Amino acid sequence: MTTPHGIVETPAFMPVGTQATVKTLDPTEVRATGAAIVLANTYHLMLRPGVETLRLAGGLHRFMGWSGPILTDSGGFQIFSLAHQTTVTEAGACFRSHIDGSRWDLSPERAVELQIDFGADIMMALDHVVGLPATRDRVMEATARSARWLDRCVRRFVDLGGTETGSSLFGICQGGMDPDLRVESAAMLAATDVAGCAIGGLSVGEPKPVMAEMLALTTPLLPIAKPRYLMGVGSPEDLWLGVASGVDLFDCVLPTRVARNGGLYTADGRVNIRSRVFSQRHEPLDATCDCSACLRFTAAYLHHLFRADELLGLRLASIHNLRFLARQMETIRRALDAGTFDSARREFVDRYQPVVPTASGDGQRLT
Amino acid sequence: MTTPHGIVETPAFMPVGTQATVKTLDPTEVRATGAAIVLANTYHLMLRPGVETLRLAGGLHRFMGWSGPILTDSGGFQIFSLAHQTTVTEAGACFRSHIDGSRWDLSPERAVELQIDFGADIMMALDHVVGLPATRDRVMEATARSARWLDRCVRRFVDLGGTETGSSLFGICQGGMDPDLRVESAAMLAATDVAGCAIGGLSVGEPKPVMAEMLALTTPLLPIAKPRYLMGVGSPEDLWLGVASGVDLFDCVLPTRVARNGGLYTADGRVNIRSRVFSQRHEPLDATCDCSACLRFTAAYLHHLFRADELLGLRLASIHNLRFLARQMETIRRALDAGTFDSARREFVDRYQPVVPTASGDGQRLT
Repeated sequence: MTTPHGIVETPAFMPVGTQATVKTLDPTEVRATGAAIVLANTYHLMLRPGVETLRLAGGLHRFMGWSGPILTDSGGFQIFSLAHQTTVTEAGACFRSHIDGSRWDLSPERAVELQIDFGADIMMALDHVVGLPATRDRVMEATARSARWLDRCVRRFVDLGGTETGSSLFGICQGGMDPDLRVESAAMLAATDVAGCAIGGLSVGEPKPVMAEMLALTTPLLPIAKPRYLMGVGSPEDLWLGVASGVDLFDCVLPTRVARNGGLYTADGRVNIRSRVFSQRHEPLDATCDCSACLRFTAAYLHHLFRADELLGLRLASIHNLRFLARQMETIRRALDAGTFDSARREFVDRYQPVVPTASGDGQRLT
Repeated sequence: MTTPHGIVETPAFMPVGTQATVKTLDPTEVRATGAAIVLANTYHLMLRPGVETLRLAGGLHRFMGWSGPILTDSGGFQIFSLAHQTTVTEAGACFRSHIDGSRWDLSPERAVELQIDFGADIMMALDHVVGLPATRDRVMEATARSARWLDRCVRRFVDLGGTETGSSLFGICQGGMDPDLRVESAAMLAATDVAGCAIGGLSVGEPKPVMAEMLALTTPLLPIAKPRYLMGVGSPEDLWLGVASGVDLFDCVLPTRVARNGGLYTADGRVNIRSRVFSQRHEPLDATCDCSACLRFTAAYLHHLFRADELLGLRLASIHNLRFLARQMETIRRALDAGTFDSARREFVDRYQPVVPTASGDGQRLT
């Protein structure tokens, strides 16, 4: 995938830098994990520091010191999950900031304008997200509205110069867990003139087989010549599942969020570094890991940092998890090139013990 | 100053890595600020991760990934400021952990043994610290006991092999704010067979002129051939004052602690990066600063990170302040070599506006 700030080899996982920083990491560290592209968030950035600040800073790339590609989410998800008193009309969404209660509006057109001003390499269209469970009627209505909003995003994008702006526009298909609506939404997106196609509204708490079914229904309907992006996913095992379904791009807060809670990926599954079993493990957490945490520090030291509430621990854990996922994506890309994806996936699945999903919603696409 | 882990050019400021990490920083970053030696804390380390863990890790240097010299404080200050239910007998101190309430003993001999097991390049003798204000009798008693404890530390150190252990031992003089006791304690320390002499119990909330008077009384009594170490100091202006009095070594949590509260040193004084004045300052906080925060990020970005509670901000601020102090010490060393210390100090004082001390005790030697 080619962007104004460089090429991204796909399939790729995008670390999330919600507020113009991948939490606890500086851009050099993010790059060193092997990440080629990061995600930032329109909802958060419009509230703080605000588009005017980002414009004066010379754009988001310069502001945050990241010279690679940036994809910005449109804010659709956060408006419906994080903001307060959100109301939606055909014109757009109106909501109160979760930070200070101030009133804000976001229309499809405004979402495009903001993301162009941020200087995003890839911008996402604004969609109408409904919380699940929801009635079929509500999902249908939101899906139809998202389709109309997408058309408005495309028009505004073209009016402002299209790719001349330095950005490209991806659309999002939705449809809840309803096969018919999923198919309909994907077909609509496939027929729209966008640079890439995202699948939204999955990994939001539904059982894994349901997600797998929706993916299997949806992805084949999206143009193979354009990047296909599964939003808010996720866990190591879901990346394999997504690629198997034809997905090219992923993003998720999970690797950095679980890292800050002491959850570290290993080839055998996720472990919690706070556990006493690591207190005397005076060797790297994973001797085969080439992340800058495992190369320099022992599991016992990471354990100590977490037990002592030292912030360096959060950073080292974040580096480890992002490197784990980036290395996994490298493995996947090599396997695809070599035509050995299925056996590589079996090898992963045979060894890796996934975390059982909990009510707290691990794996969800969150703030 | 020569240590088993390298040479330290003096006068030097030692960043504090209380719990085997300079808060928010990794060892590479600490080194890059120009720090040659770091301090760690016996009280904290004996409680967590414990001496056995550090021994199994191959010592504190390997555990925390710092290959330069380490000075460990004996724990005297923390036992009397941080621990609970501390009681002192001639034998030593008995206290409860501030972490879990568990009971611990620390004698002068044990303090030496622990610090040898940590692998400290420089260990501090255990002293009896009294909180101020205190009666003259109490200060006198504690000063006399500290002298006896120092002798016991020296004996234990010699019994265990002296410098053959890989460590050297510094003593500490005290004396509260009483000139006679200060002089007596310094004279006693000067006559003791230790590798270096520390001045304790200053910068604990007393007015600056009182600290200056105590320093002027004490430092000349300590052997010029040995390093003279002013504990728990401190602020940029106090480093100049200390060096003017003949001090070679300093440590303080202040630069990293105020950094985590958004306080950043500049040649004109300390500023708070959270202030609105920085929200649109799209240039480095200090264009002449060569720290990795100022070289890579703008003041507006640092402001945003602090406003958004992003941990990267704490790290960049810590890097900036440590680099500020290290560069100041470089300036001081060059001025001393060139015989221009007085004019260099005047130049600093004419420009730098010190922070007015507050009841919250900025500048104190704390945990």
